[in-house]
Amino acid sequence: MQARKLRRFEARAADRLIFFSDAVVAIAITLLALELPVPEGPTVAALRSAVHDDLGHYTAFLISFAVIGAAWGQHNRAFRYTERADDRLRALNAGWLLTIVLNPFATKLLTTEGDDTDTVGLRFGFYALLQCLAHASVIAMERRMTTRQLRDRDVPPELVAAGDPVLYGLLLGFGLSVPLFFATQYAWILWIVVPVGAGQLSRYRARTAAAD
Amino acid sequence: MQARKLRRFEARAADRLIFFSDAVVAIAITLLALELPVPEGPTVAALRSAVHDDLGHYTAFLISFAVIGAAWGQHNRAFRYTERADDRLRALNAGWLLTIVLNPFATKLLTTEGDDTDTVGLRFGFYALLQCLAHASVIAMERRMTTRQLRDRDVPPELVAAGDPVLYGLLLGFGLSVPLFFATQYAWILWIVVPVGAGQLSRYRARTAAAD
Amino acid sequence: MQARKLRRFEARAADRLIFFSDAVVAIAITLLALELPVPEGPTVAALRSAVHDDLGHYTAFLISFAVIGAAWGQHNRAFRYTERADDRLRALNAGWLLTIVLNPFATKLLTTEGDDTDTVGLRFGFYALLQCLAHASVIAMERRMTTRQLRDRDVPPELVAAGDPVLYGLLLGFGLSVPLFFATQYAWILWIVVPVGAGQLSRYRARTAAAD
Amino acid sequence: MQARKLRRFEARAADRLIFFSDAVVAIAITLLALELPVPEGPTVAALRSAVHDDLGHYTAFLISFAVIGAAWGQHNRAFRYTERADDRLRALNAGWLLTIVLNPFATKLLTTEGDDTDTVGLRFGFYALLQCLAHASVIAMERRMTTRQLRDRDVPPELVAAGDPVLYGLLLGFGLSVPLFFATQYAWILWIVVPVGAGQLSRYRARTAAAD
Repeated sequence: MQARKLRRFEARAADRLIFFSDAVVAIAITLLALELPVPEGPTVAALRSAVHDDLGHYTAFLISFAVIGAAWGQHNRAFRYTERADDRLRALNAGWLLTIVLNPFATKLLTTEGDDTDTVGLRFGFYALLQCLAHASVIAMERRMTTRQLRDRDVPPELVAAGDPVLYGLLLGFGLSVPLFFATQYAWILWIVVPVGAGQLSRYRARTAAAD
Repeated sequence: MQARKLRRFEARAADRLIFFSDAVVAIAITLLALELPVPEGPTVAALRSAVHDDLGHYTAFLISFAVIGAAWGQHNRAFRYTERADDRLRALNAGWLLTIVLNPFATKLLTTEGDDTDTVGLRFGFYALLQCLAHASVIAMERRMTTRQLRDRDVPPELVAAGDPVLYGLLLGFGLSVPLFFATQYAWILWIVVPVGAGQLSRYRARTAAAD
Repeated sequence: MQARKLRRFEARAADRLIFFSDAVVAIAITLLALELPVPEGPTVAALRSAVHDDLGHYTAFLISFAVIGAAWGQHNRAFRYTERADDRLRALNAGWLLTIVLNPFATKLLTTEGDDTDTVGLRFGFYALLQCLAHASVIAMERRMTTRQLRDRDVPPELVAAGDPVLYGLLLGFGLSVPLFFATQYAWILWIVVPVGAGQLSRYRARTAAAD
Repeated sequence: MQARKLRRFEARAADRLIFFSDAVVAIAITLLALELPVPEGPTVAALRSAVHDDLGHYTAFLISFAVIGAAWGQHNRAFRYTERADDRLRALNAGWLLTIVLNPFATKLLTTEGDDTDTVGLRFGFYALLQCLAHASVIAMERRMTTRQLRDRDVPPELVAAGDPVLYGLLLGFGLSVPLFFATQYAWILWIVVPVGAGQLSRYRARTAAAD
């Protein structure tokens, strides 16, 4: 078989892997909303009070929607120039999919009862650890693609070599929050501050470098 | 990397965005039917009475099926010539997906108990507001595609510049119904009358213009 | 825009319609199994008795799996050479999707309580009517494609003009069973006998014609 | 119609079959996690005890995630060079999809009550039989593709003729475990040992052959 045709079949298999991953993410993100509690009440006051009681569920849904969306965005970016997949990349991707599939479960965990610091630490810590593993998988996949040249050969190295600072910010933000949740419930602030800060910092540096 | 290859990768990333959105819509529209109450009864009279009791659920399902179908149709039309996606378009699309994913929840809200005007206003108003935001996102995405030239460069401006009158009709119909639901439950009539009227009017104008 | 590029965009929009339909069918067919009752029991006898009690659910699942599979197969065949979609085809396809999405609901209806002839007639009749509408939609879509030349222009008319005898057999089998269910529960035999017979008959005729 | 165009349409229909299968697998694998029990408890001890009580569910989820993942991987590999699909291949694929769709059900069966050897045998035996049938379908599909030349004509026979030893190992491992489950609950060890062993053995042989 000519090299060109073989490459076409390899690209098709890679596309199928990407497609399959997209479908899994799409289902996980849609299922998030499936079990949202529906507020009920005969009067406006009763309705408002029902909404108030379930505020935790609505917040957890919005957070998880953003979290899965960010994970998908990173996967998307990482696979932008991918033309081939080897067994290792497939295994890493399966690990990534496992973290995605567990998100609806982890989201429910966020909103169960129990307010003492240690159980909060366990529940939120598990959620953050899951996201941390998701982003670590993406980083591992990017490295695999670089070392094994699984991307299109014409992609200039500077486009993919550095990695996305936001990705590393997500890894760091979720990772640091795991132990911190045993001290304070507000550790989730790191989930936003660290990746956004990493993105800003890198853009600032790029501007400074360009100005020099 | 040559410009042509880069464009191919950009088109592939845009296709992935579209595909992902389609999968989310497909799941949301199929989940609508998942919790339809199944009428039960040992006799025809009992069965008929069970159907009658759940008539609200069946109507809400059919409305939401049509509403999500219309939203998908507009998204489809808006992305017809899209060849690239930038961060802003992705963010707007994520907002659109959020409104889609919330549809099964909002549909359940339509059929909860509570008949006094204010709770009806809150429940139906939330549903209409959600659709209003969905269509506003599509309009924002169309504008972004126009200003940043994210569509194929050979598409003649007149094919995409004007925007679809039905889309603006949907935005207006859902938007106007939000306050009106606090006065009457029949405000949903606007959901049909305004977009259909907008479509008719624009076709009438096109015919008149062609006749001149 | 050149005609060739326009055709490419039209084909892309048609592909998106097909893809969206496939995703909906895939979800509906997978959800069928979601609510299968899980047999439980501490002993083999108890387990066997639990399976026996739920036999109706397992049969209904298998029937619906085959029914949705057949519907997808007909859709697949009908759209094999489709290169464009107009508004009417989209509307007909939306109707087809509505029948698909209602299948898990209609399957649950098959297995609710109530054994007197009239309620059986209503429950099974609704199921059969739904399938009948699904196949009628496919026939309507095939006609639209023929009259509006929505297929690739090089497809020889004899490949698509005649229509699939099995499709008409499915329409007839499901359609005839609707009134018959008010007389006997065994009307479902028509679902199998008529389409299989139609397929056999047409193959027999083709052989006879070839032998002449 | 020219042969080349016909081949393009055949490839498109085959792609649609593959895509549909992927969507079904993606949904089945994501639904696995949907009904995972969420551990609750006001203290760390209570939470830990809740996790402990549900350990069987978490293990069953992880096993089924790996099992469906492996089934998808084998399907992926089998269809790598497929350019056409005939009716028989479609029917076999429908059978494969049935086994996939039943996985969430079979996984629930693993974790129901009942510890005596015979009920364990029935529950685990059913699960293993299902996987056995899945892999037998893939083998039957590979044979069909070979005898009917449904793959790209330029694929060298040695790439596809031999079949994947891991696939045969999965078939054998699951198949042997079915009767063994009536003797011991640990028969699942075969699910891992036989396919891994088959893979190792074939790699060892390939190395020895290359060294000669």
